[in-house]
Amino acid sequence: MSLNNLADLFHDELRDILSAERQLIEAIPKMAKMAASDELKDAFEKHLEQTIVQATRVEQAFLDTGMPARAKTCEAMKGLIKEASSMMEEKAAPEVMDAALIACAQKVEHYEIATYGTLCTWAKLLGYTEALELLKLNLNEEEETDEALSVIAETVNSEAQA
Amino acid sequence: MSLNNLADLFHDELRDILSAERQLIEAIPKMAKMAASDELKDAFEKHLEQTIVQATRVEQAFLDTGMPARAKTCEAMKGLIKEASSMMEEKAAPEVMDAALIACAQKVEHYEIATYGTLCTWAKLLGYTEALELLKLNLNEEEETDEALSVIAETVNSEAQA
Repeated sequence: MSLNNLADLFHDELRDILSAERQLIEAIPKMAKMAASDELKDAFEKHLEQTIVQATRVEQAFLDTGMPARAKTCEAMKGLIKEASSMMEEKAAPEVMDAALIACAQKVEHYEIATYGTLCTWAKLLGYTEALELLKLNLNEEEETDEALSVIAETVNSEAQA
Repeated sequence: MSLNNLADLFHDELRDILSAERQLIEAIPKMAKMAASDELKDAFEKHLEQTIVQATRVEQAFLDTGMPARAKTCEAMKGLIKEASSMMEEKAAPEVMDAALIACAQKVEHYEIATYGTLCTWAKLLGYTEALELLKLNLNEEEETDEALSVIAETVNSEAQA
């Protein structure tokens, strides 16, 4: 592949986030299953539904680039999920595991916030107005999810501390 | 390892970020070398110096936990660096490579922002006041670096778009 201009790079980055979202569709149910707190379980289940929609939005965003919606393995998300999986194999008190799950999930959210932030900047510069709208929706949802997890963490952390 | 309480989890997370910082000390010089823009090269070199200090601060933060400052391979950072390395192997116009390097670096910063954010919350709850001060310094620097990269991106992106 050659990256001759910003449009090539935008397309490459879209392929990365499509892979990331698809990996998450596989991973989130495991995190939901592991969560002890009902509130956290619900948050993961809600975010799984959002993630499925987000992957579809990314597929739609490819239309603006005129390039095929083909994912390219996102190594960073592979690493993030590997870290979460190792954590889930640890012997942990349920409330401590919940605190750990939130930490892992917030790292994932931050990865996505960084990527969608970059993608939105590039889409704007490139005049990909439809892609920009779709990607902004995803960015906002990731930011909201990160904040919602911080709220749940307040209860979970106090329980883990006890 | 058993994660019986929040202190165990805090210690585990400190080990993760110590590994992440040490991995970055190896990786940032390669990104600085690859950067075409002098401004970006300088930013990477400045951040390398900060990262060396940050790793030392993390080592110091362990003192509050009474546990040894031993790193545990951070798989997420391994993935983030693998992604940056693959990017650096691509055939790209110099200004497009710069835009790509900034995107990779901002993902790294967001990983660290998420981790230090969590560590600060936990340090506060656990009454690790010295660790909290050290980790807050790191958090602030990562946030500043992320913002500085966004500013450099404005110039780099316009050049990449041309």
